[in-house]
Amino acid sequence: MTAVFDYQRQERIGLPEAVFCAGKPPTFLTNLLQELREKARPVLLTHLDQSRCDVLPTEVRNAIQYDGISQTGFLNGCHPARDWGTVAVVSAGTSDARVTREAARTLEHAGVVANLIEDVGVAGLWRLQARLPSIRAASVVIAVAGWDAALISVLGGLVSTPLIAVPAGTGYGVAAGGTSALHSILSSCAPGVCTVNIDNGYGAACAALRVLAGIAGVHRVRETPLA
Amino acid sequence: MTAVFDYQRQERIGLPEAVFCAGKPPTFLTNLLQELREKARPVLLTHLDQSRCDVLPTEVRNAIQYDGISQTGFLNGCHPARDWGTVAVVSAGTSDARVTREAARTLEHAGVVANLIEDVGVAGLWRLQARLPSIRAASVVIAVAGWDAALISVLGGLVSTPLIAVPAGTGYGVAAGGTSALHSILSSCAPGVCTVNIDNGYGAACAALRVLAGIAGVHRVRETPLA
Amino acid sequence: MTAVFDYQRQERIGLPEAVFCAGKPPTFLTNLLQELREKARPVLLTHLDQSRCDVLPTEVRNAIQYDGISQTGFLNGCHPARDWGTVAVVSAGTSDARVTREAARTLEHAGVVANLIEDVGVAGLWRLQARLPSIRAASVVIAVAGWDAALISVLGGLVSTPLIAVPAGTGYGVAAGGTSALHSILSSCAPGVCTVNIDNGYGAACAALRVLAGIAGVHRVRETPLA
Amino acid sequence: MTAVFDYQRQERIGLPEAVFCAGKPPTFLTNLLQELREKARPVLLTHLDQSRCDVLPTEVRNAIQYDGISQTGFLNGCHPARDWGTVAVVSAGTSDARVTREAARTLEHAGVVANLIEDVGVAGLWRLQARLPSIRAASVVIAVAGWDAALISVLGGLVSTPLIAVPAGTGYGVAAGGTSALHSILSSCAPGVCTVNIDNGYGAACAALRVLAGIAGVHRVRETPLA
Amino acid sequence: MTAVFDYQRQERIGLPEAVFCAGKPPTFLTNLLQELREKARPVLLTHLDQSRCDVLPTEVRNAIQYDGISQTGFLNGCHPARDWGTVAVVSAGTSDARVTREAARTLEHAGVVANLIEDVGVAGLWRLQARLPSIRAASVVIAVAGWDAALISVLGGLVSTPLIAVPAGTGYGVAAGGTSALHSILSSCAPGVCTVNIDNGYGAACAALRVLAGIAGVHRVRETPLA
Amino acid sequence: MTAVFDYQRQERIGLPEAVFCAGKPPTFLTNLLQELREKARPVLLTHLDQSRCDVLPTEVRNAIQYDGISQTGFLNGCHPARDWGTVAVVSAGTSDARVTREAARTLEHAGVVANLIEDVGVAGLWRLQARLPSIRAASVVIAVAGWDAALISVLGGLVSTPLIAVPAGTGYGVAAGGTSALHSILSSCAPGVCTVNIDNGYGAACAALRVLAGIAGVHRVRETPLA
Amino acid sequence: MTAVFDYQRQERIGLPEAVFCAGKPPTFLTNLLQELREKARPVLLTHLDQSRCDVLPTEVRNAIQYDGISQTGFLNGCHPARDWGTVAVVSAGTSDARVTREAARTLEHAGVVANLIEDVGVAGLWRLQARLPSIRAASVVIAVAGWDAALISVLGGLVSTPLIAVPAGTGYGVAAGGTSALHSILSSCAPGVCTVNIDNGYGAACAALRVLAGIAGVHRVRETPLA
Amino acid sequence: MTAVFDYQRQERIGLPEAVFCAGKPPTFLTNLLQELREKARPVLLTHLDQSRCDVLPTEVRNAIQYDGISQTGFLNGCHPARDWGTVAVVSAGTSDARVTREAARTLEHAGVVANLIEDVGVAGLWRLQARLPSIRAASVVIAVAGWDAALISVLGGLVSTPLIAVPAGTGYGVAAGGTSALHSILSSCAPGVCTVNIDNGYGAACAALRVLAGIAGVHRVRETPLA
Repeated sequence: MTAVFDYQRQERIGLPEAVFCAGKPPTFLTNLLQELREKARPVLLTHLDQSRCDVLPTEVRNAIQYDGISQTGFLNGCHPARDWGTVAVVSAGTSDARVTREAARTLEHAGVVANLIEDVGVAGLWRLQARLPSIRAASVVIAVAGWDAALISVLGGLVSTPLIAVPAGTGYGVAAGGTSALHSILSSCAPGVCTVNIDNGYGAACAALRVLAGIAGVHRVRETPLA
Repeated sequence: MTAVFDYQRQERIGLPEAVFCAGKPPTFLTNLLQELREKARPVLLTHLDQSRCDVLPTEVRNAIQYDGISQTGFLNGCHPARDWGTVAVVSAGTSDARVTREAARTLEHAGVVANLIEDVGVAGLWRLQARLPSIRAASVVIAVAGWDAALISVLGGLVSTPLIAVPAGTGYGVAAGGTSALHSILSSCAPGVCTVNIDNGYGAACAALRVLAGIAGVHRVRETPLA
Repeated sequence: MTAVFDYQRQERIGLPEAVFCAGKPPTFLTNLLQELREKARPVLLTHLDQSRCDVLPTEVRNAIQYDGISQTGFLNGCHPARDWGTVAVVSAGTSDARVTREAARTLEHAGVVANLIEDVGVAGLWRLQARLPSIRAASVVIAVAGWDAALISVLGGLVSTPLIAVPAGTGYGVAAGGTSALHSILSSCAPGVCTVNIDNGYGAACAALRVLAGIAGVHRVRETPLA
Repeated sequence: MTAVFDYQRQERIGLPEAVFCAGKPPTFLTNLLQELREKARPVLLTHLDQSRCDVLPTEVRNAIQYDGISQTGFLNGCHPARDWGTVAVVSAGTSDARVTREAARTLEHAGVVANLIEDVGVAGLWRLQARLPSIRAASVVIAVAGWDAALISVLGGLVSTPLIAVPAGTGYGVAAGGTSALHSILSSCAPGVCTVNIDNGYGAACAALRVLAGIAGVHRVRETPLA
Repeated sequence: MTAVFDYQRQERIGLPEAVFCAGKPPTFLTNLLQELREKARPVLLTHLDQSRCDVLPTEVRNAIQYDGISQTGFLNGCHPARDWGTVAVVSAGTSDARVTREAARTLEHAGVVANLIEDVGVAGLWRLQARLPSIRAASVVIAVAGWDAALISVLGGLVSTPLIAVPAGTGYGVAAGGTSALHSILSSCAPGVCTVNIDNGYGAACAALRVLAGIAGVHRVRETPLA
Repeated sequence: MTAVFDYQRQERIGLPEAVFCAGKPPTFLTNLLQELREKARPVLLTHLDQSRCDVLPTEVRNAIQYDGISQTGFLNGCHPARDWGTVAVVSAGTSDARVTREAARTLEHAGVVANLIEDVGVAGLWRLQARLPSIRAASVVIAVAGWDAALISVLGGLVSTPLIAVPAGTGYGVAAGGTSALHSILSSCAPGVCTVNIDNGYGAACAALRVLAGIAGVHRVRETPLA
Repeated sequence: MTAVFDYQRQERIGLPEAVFCAGKPPTFLTNLLQELREKARPVLLTHLDQSRCDVLPTEVRNAIQYDGISQTGFLNGCHPARDWGTVAVVSAGTSDARVTREAARTLEHAGVVANLIEDVGVAGLWRLQARLPSIRAASVVIAVAGWDAALISVLGGLVSTPLIAVPAGTGYGVAAGGTSALHSILSSCAPGVCTVNIDNGYGAACAALRVLAGIAGVHRVRETPLA
Repeated sequence: MTAVFDYQRQERIGLPEAVFCAGKPPTFLTNLLQELREKARPVLLTHLDQSRCDVLPTEVRNAIQYDGISQTGFLNGCHPARDWGTVAVVSAGTSDARVTREAARTLEHAGVVANLIEDVGVAGLWRLQARLPSIRAASVVIAVAGWDAALISVLGGLVSTPLIAVPAGTGYGVAAGGTSALHSILSSCAPGVCTVNIDNGYGAACAALRVLAGIAGVHRVRETPLA
């Protein structure tokens, strides 16, 4: 069994090659990472938990810069730094750290500067106020929030930049799993907020990269048809 | 068929006698209101829409002070004014007017002063800031919000008084029907916020009356058993 | 009763002043539009159905350029044209026209060019292929899709620009109400797709405007605090 | 990484400083508790399970009075006793003990007397009847119930004091997770009952403290703006 | 098109022949009722609203004893009275009248005595207490309740007879449609309560008839195979 | 902490005293069982898994007749045999064994004969046909089914006795957790089927006992009020 | 605005050209049907209710053979008859007629013989038994069922041919909208049953046509790429 | 306790005898497999995880050809090869391997050729394009997809053969558990796609076998009645 890796993604839509590691049978994952390692191109690994990372073959393991909080790895290093402006990655609380840092690591892997601003939930608005200048200085804002995700609506009324929300699955009771945060964000009374799937820090970073590429004026004009 | 009205409620738990008018077969409703009119005690009518109100027998209709926006009626007038302090009834937007005013009318019926503060949703925080002194001056705050209900979490972090939220059913998409607002409120990161059913302005006012009675020191000590 | 209109929104976050007309009690709506008409600033009206529009006072009605399919109105005209690039507004089918055109009208109101590309669902991929060059030429893509929303994932793998999806509520059975489309979009295997609420063409256009402003380099640096 | 603790909460809204311990990465939690320990102010720890508590550094662990059933800890002791009246904390069954006691411990931490009355579900009404005088003697009633939460409606018709319900997640089948209890409470035919999130004993206690502060006349008038 | 009526039901399982009238295309319904009228056997019609009843052909209409509240009709009269004991049909409120009376009419059609006891919800327990002797005197209890359905759990702890609950769809917010009542009943802490579908008064009556037939000792021993 | 056991249940509603063991803190459970053991009255223990049973104090453990499949225990033995007829306990498949046998054990504990008929799902109707005479010979039928629960509708059209369904939580995909089985049963086109909560074999047996007591003519007439 | 009709569908996947008429703005629908009428190719119209059909321009209306029960129309007639064997279209009840006949009409439009067998639900198995030979004689079976959809599982255990289920939205309570039927079918214990969306008679017929084409050996080998 | 195995299934509906191993109490499973082993007929075991397989008695274990990825076993070998054409088993990603291979193994057990084509999700359409000729060459297509399942709609517009979808439970956030994939498939805009339960590779293979048997002309005409 050989996975069919989408090597053209970088060329086609300008986003980093990535492997979603959860759920794949272990031998599949190992074979795929081995193959990718040999290509010597930088690949981002997501949803790679510590225990699965630790049992990879040594040569593969050694080629990965792993971060346990975000459960991400850089295989064959990162892309070179890009002068595309800064992304503010904001979070309501530290329980969302896996997601927040998955977004930051995805940006880092793509060569983009992420400014990490954590623990500014609106139950104490002064925390947000203190960081507002930093947030407003970014080209794009990614905001991660679980529970009621009220941070998103407040931010949406305060910043004029693109704002990409990530509902987080932290919480208990009706908040468990992140649906309350997701619905709160989708229902936000602040205009022009958009969102990605619950806990999808990677996807939010990719959306931010699409915007940054636009600002940088690098969207390619492709002539190829559907595939 | 005769309904079995709970005349002792006022004596037992200190809350106003009320009739939920929706869904009752028309002849049932007419008979019940006729009976109550003859008792000459003040009764609050809720969920009474204009068309059902207009076809009531004249003598019943004349005994009702009706308000179309809140769909409430005062049958046989209101309770005398009580010196129990003020309740701030705050709303995020004017689309919630039926619910907001149902709460205010319930308080008015019970003889309590309601301070109505509408349209202060957090997408523009300055609107809330301007009214914050009035809100903080109340003994209890009722806050009505649909959509993402972010107003509740912001308020919960700014006022120290009892805060009773009412999720409103306004909205479309995932906000339709009020579940997103309800879940947002229940998940609020602001401590000590409590809530009632979606669109239940009446219930929020009753909860506020329980608190006001406590502050006023009038909770009765009853000796009677279960019934 | 006076609504508290957020006149500073344009200054604060650069998005057009707008009124969500559904659900407001008729007298509230009339008073608000009357007040706004007198300010002589361009305001966008959304979710204004034909019957509510037709009973507005003549002087208000005359100040509105109304479009029945999108249920939008331009009160006091539009903003001047901006040289911010084009937004492709793509739809899977013509049943989504209300939403698709709400997005296009919101852009038009803000002075931005919308390129409307309807009825390119993926059940016949040739329809999409024929329009792909036009779609790729835009700075931002808004894509509206109901049912299974498969168009979004296919587009996400083909364009490198920011892609903002709008799930549409068209459909029956499990598709009714748009939840299946919403979940399909959130689960998209194409990276960097983001979404707004079901049927929220207005919100998608606002998100696109945030991006275009970034590309145009006009994001303001504000010094003011929270409100 | 440093969490941004909301030290002003006590001053701003009069509620105890608290840390929600579940979900935080272990090193984050340890650092935060270390920092708080050094401040020497009483802090309530919630959702701290035995295993996470046991691996804290000794100096932190020694500063915590831990209770395994409620999964709460008092870091740096409690607030001094307040003469604010009694809260009855009532439960339907002993399976709800974690939640019931979380409420009681939160009150204890704030210096308020909690009268714990457990296992009085309505399947045998005599159990409730026997404890009714104690319940009616309290200034506020917190009632915890899982399954059908019928206790709440019965209590709501029998007591005139503020009644704050906590739906509990105990149960199987449709009761699993507490949604049936939550919906039952929100639908209660007893007027003026309010609720908090499923299993949120802490939040119910905070809501009770808001009420008690009102009865005690200690709500502060603050002049500060939003943050 | 001819419907295939299950004429053997009475013989096979001892329950009355019945026609569910909602949803059938009008010509189908007319043809079926015409056919049944000619058979001259008593048939129960359920979910037959007034407007559909009024446009039936005169000869069919005349053969029906119609009741508008329950939306039921007796075509060709009822079954002869049976000496099978009494069924108490209890309801929490008068808004449930359609369902309560559908149950009572189904019993009446089968020749069984229904004792109708309405409006005894538990928010005022004295109402239930007053009627408890009548309820306990019945052989089977059917109890109809919407909202939180707390009546069911209280009844289940007070009566030893078979207790068949019917969740009612009355209510708004989370109670709308009857799911909260259904889940409350299924989660009841009172042992041995069983339920039927939301609003299914007919089904509850059939379940009661199965029990009464058992008490009366009339269950037939059938020798036939599956069909 | 002492639980408040409902010792009067047997007297009040004729159903066996029982303890739901899941979820109770271990020390609570031990104390309660110790107390009950000393009363020397037969008590049914449900949801007692093997591991919790094994760590009970020896004297308590020795007083329990434990069955691992049903996760039930008889503390202080069973009630004497009653001549109340037979209950057929039918199941669709052997994966439902825990539930099926919980029902049978509850009946056994009450002194009633349970005829266990397993694995007769309708995908092969011949299996049901072979057992139909035994099923029809019982006074009451309890039928346990997971997945689509089609067995219930087929049985409901074939037997005239009371039929109490138990939806089982076995299954995967949309069947996981038993909701599909529950909804299928509630929607059954066979008249007079009633149901209990998912996996509630105990409750179904209690409902059967209520019916059997009726057939046996032993329902007590109680004079006592609510409690 | 011109819709982009998928004229190549017949050539590409061998299924009839069709227009889903619900939801399209009226002028869009009229223009599209006008265009299609002029092409003089047979097109199937679905979800065309009587009132929308009646207001079409006369020349369009005259080109349509309309059937009110199925809400379908044949524009420009049908395809010639095909010798592809018979499809049995089976339904559990006559309330499902719109869906059942939509399936039959779709087959008729494609030139295939549909054998309509209605009202054979399993509450009376003799009805199904009588029609079993006809059902078994078909090459493919389409089975429509609402409520508990138990018919599907019983049929799945009795026929060896392909069996395509259609859950129907008829029913009330938990059955309303067809989700209970859908989940019941997906959970069916009979192997090899497949399903389409709720109420999707058209889709079931298309699935049957795919099978019949296979049996007839006419699947085309296409060389063209994706579009 | 003896399970009642449906030995006639093969004769009655032509599908392989199979045992669903999950959830059965271990001793039940062992006894059943022992009995089946002795019959020496080929039986398919599904949902048999490695740990349960490893503790089977040696003689049973030795009679099973086990595959850990699909969690299937062949007890007593497979059916002889059939010349019924090929089934393409297509998957969107390698995380779906358990389901994909369960389908392939079920076909292999029945003697049918499965052409396994994995990892062709539509985020990179070139992957699908490369394999399209192989897919079109099959008599039936089974397609497995999780997340948004967009592959199904794209395939449905490209192949004319019967297409049986299997939604997969892989994914997180709203995709978790497979409901988003299921709803996407049911809502597919491609006509004639049908589906089975989430993760039900076995059922999809059985549905394919029903079709292949039809194409091969081997459907039996049975004369037997219902059972």
